[in-house]
Amino acid sequence: MQRAGPSSPSCSSTSDSFPLSHLHTAECGSESSAEPQKHERADLSRMRSIVSFYICYLLCLCLGLACVVCVCLWNSQWRGGFAWDGSALQFNWHPVLMVTGLVVLYGNGAVLYRIPLTWGQNKLPWKLLHAALMLLTLVLAIVGLCAVFGNHNAKNIPNLYSLHSWIGIAATALFAMQWLVGMAGFLLPCSPTSLRKLLKPVHVWFGGSILSLSIVACISGINEKLFFVLKGDSTKTHRYDELPPEAVLGNSLGVLIVAFGLVVLIILSNRKWQRPEPGPEDMAYTPLFQEENE
Amino acid sequence: MQRAGPSSPSCSSTSDSFPLSHLHTAECGSESSAEPQKHERADLSRMRSIVSFYICYLLCLCLGLACVVCVCLWNSQWRGGFAWDGSALQFNWHPVLMVTGLVVLYGNGAVLYRIPLTWGQNKLPWKLLHAALMLLTLVLAIVGLCAVFGNHNAKNIPNLYSLHSWIGIAATALFAMQWLVGMAGFLLPCSPTSLRKLLKPVHVWFGGSILSLSIVACISGINEKLFFVLKGDSTKTHRYDELPPEAVLGNSLGVLIVAFGLVVLIILSNRKWQRPEPGPEDMAYTPLFQEENE
Repeated sequence: MQRAGPSSPSCSSTSDSFPLSHLHTAECGSESSAEPQKHERADLSRMRSIVSFYICYLLCLCLGLACVVCVCLWNSQWRGGFAWDGSALQFNWHPVLMVTGLVVLYGNGAVLYRIPLTWGQNKLPWKLLHAALMLLTLVLAIVGLCAVFGNHNAKNIPNLYSLHSWIGIAATALFAMQWLVGMAGFLLPCSPTSLRKLLKPVHVWFGGSILSLSIVACISGINEKLFFVLKGDSTKTHRYDELPPEAVLGNSLGVLIVAFGLVVLIILSNRKWQRPEPGPEDMAYTPLFQEENE
Repeated sequence: MQRAGPSSPSCSSTSDSFPLSHLHTAECGSESSAEPQKHERADLSRMRSIVSFYICYLLCLCLGLACVVCVCLWNSQWRGGFAWDGSALQFNWHPVLMVTGLVVLYGNGAVLYRIPLTWGQNKLPWKLLHAALMLLTLVLAIVGLCAVFGNHNAKNIPNLYSLHSWIGIAATALFAMQWLVGMAGFLLPCSPTSLRKLLKPVHVWFGGSILSLSIVACISGINEKLFFVLKGDSTKTHRYDELPPEAVLGNSLGVLIVAFGLVVLIILSNRKWQRPEPGPEDMAYTPLFQEENE
C-alpha cells in the first residue's frame, strides 16, 4: 500500500481540513507501508479525545443554560421581577447579570479555542469573538454592579463591606485588567510573538483563577441573599432552614454554578484539547476522512 | 575540558543527590566538549525555577500560618473562645478546624511532592507523609462537622439546609473519597503501575478541585457568620456594614484563604515544579553542586 506523496491533494489541503489528523501529518509522504495500524490507532485515540471533548462541551452548554434559567426564574418568579428604580427590583438585576456574565458567558468565552471545529480555520475571527464575548461579560458585570450600588445608595446601605463584595469586586477588577492585557498582548498588531508566547499560559491560568473567584463571589452572594430574604417573618416567606422551594432553587443554582465552573476548568486544563500551535506541519494537513491514494 | 564518564562518582551518584541537574544527566558521559555553555544555561534556568518555587512555597507557608492565626484569633478573642457543650462556643471549633484542616493542612499536603529537596529521595516516606497529612485533614474536617452538628442539634437548628452547608458537605465527602481512592491506588502494593499512571493526573486534578470547593465553602461560611453575629442589636456588637474590627478580621481571613488557595493552585499547575518521574536517567544522577572531574 502506498500513501499519497507531498504533492497529492490529500497532503496539500491545509487550513479548512478537519483537525483530527493534525498529529500524523508530519509523517505524510515519508511513511513506510508497514505503519497503517499505528495510524489507525492514533486516529482512533484522537477521535475518542474529540468525542469526549464534545460531551464535556455539551455539558458546559447545558449547565450554563440551566444557570441562566435558574437565576432568571428565581428573580422573576420569587423575587418580584425587575426594575431600575433603586428598589429591591433593581437589585434583582445583580444576580442575573453577574451569573450570566461573569460565570456563564465568561466560561463559554474561555473554552472557545478548545472547540476542534475552529482549529483548521484562521484564528483571528475566533480571537475577535473571544474578545467580544469577554467585553460583553465585562459590560454585564459593570451593569450588574451598578444595579446593586444604585439599590444600596437609594436605601442608604453602605457599599463593599461584606466578604462577598470584596471577592466580587476583586474578581470584576481582575477580569477588566485581564481583558485589557489580553487585548494589548494578543490583538494589537505591534505586540511581538515572543511576548504572546510568554503571555499565553499566564493569560489562561489567570482566566481560570478569575472564573474561580467569580464563582466564590456568586456562591457567597446567593447564600447571603437566601438568608436575607427567607426569614419567615411574613406570611409570604418561609425560613431558609425549612428549605422552601425558593431555597431549593437558590441552592440548586449554586450547585449548578459550581458544576459549570468545574466543567470549564476540566476543559481548560486538558492539554489534549488545546488548539494546536501553528507549525510547519500545518502546511501539510491531511483530513482524516479524506480517501488516501493507494 | 572533559566531563566525567558514566562510571565516575559524579555520574553514578543517585537517589540522595540534589535534583537540579536532573535534566542534563541523559547526556552525561556522551557530551561533547563544545557544550559547557549550553549546560550552564540549563543549570541557570533550573536554578531560577527552584528559587521561584521556594518563593511560592514560602508564600504558601506564610499565608497558611496567617489563615490559622486569623481564624483562631477571631474565634478566641471576638467569639468568646471554645468549649464542647453544644453552645456557640462549640460552634467556634467549626471555622477553626475547617480552615486549619480542609484548607491549610490540605493545601500544604498537596504541594508536598513539589518540594525539590524531596526529589532525590525515596518516594515512599513522602507518600506516607502525604497520606498522613490528608488523614489528619479528614479527621479535623469530621470533628469540625461534629462541632456544628452538635451545636445545631442542641439548639434545634436543622442541619444541611444552606448553600454553604451543601458545598461544604460535598467538599468533605469528595475529600474522603479522594483519600480512599488515593490510598487504594497509590499505597496498596497490589495496585498495578499502569493504574497509578492513569490515576495520577485525575488525583491531582480532583485534589485541586476539592480544595477549590472547600475554599468556596469557607468564604460563604465566613460571610454568613459575619452577617449572623454583626447585627448591631446589642451594645457589644456593631453592624457588619459599619466594618468594625471583627468584620475587617473576618474579611481579611477570607482574602487570605483565597490567596492561599491561588498560591497552592499555582504550585500544582506549574509543570516545571512536578517531581520528575523515575526513568533510566535516574541511575546516572549528577548533583549540580558536585565538582566534576575535568
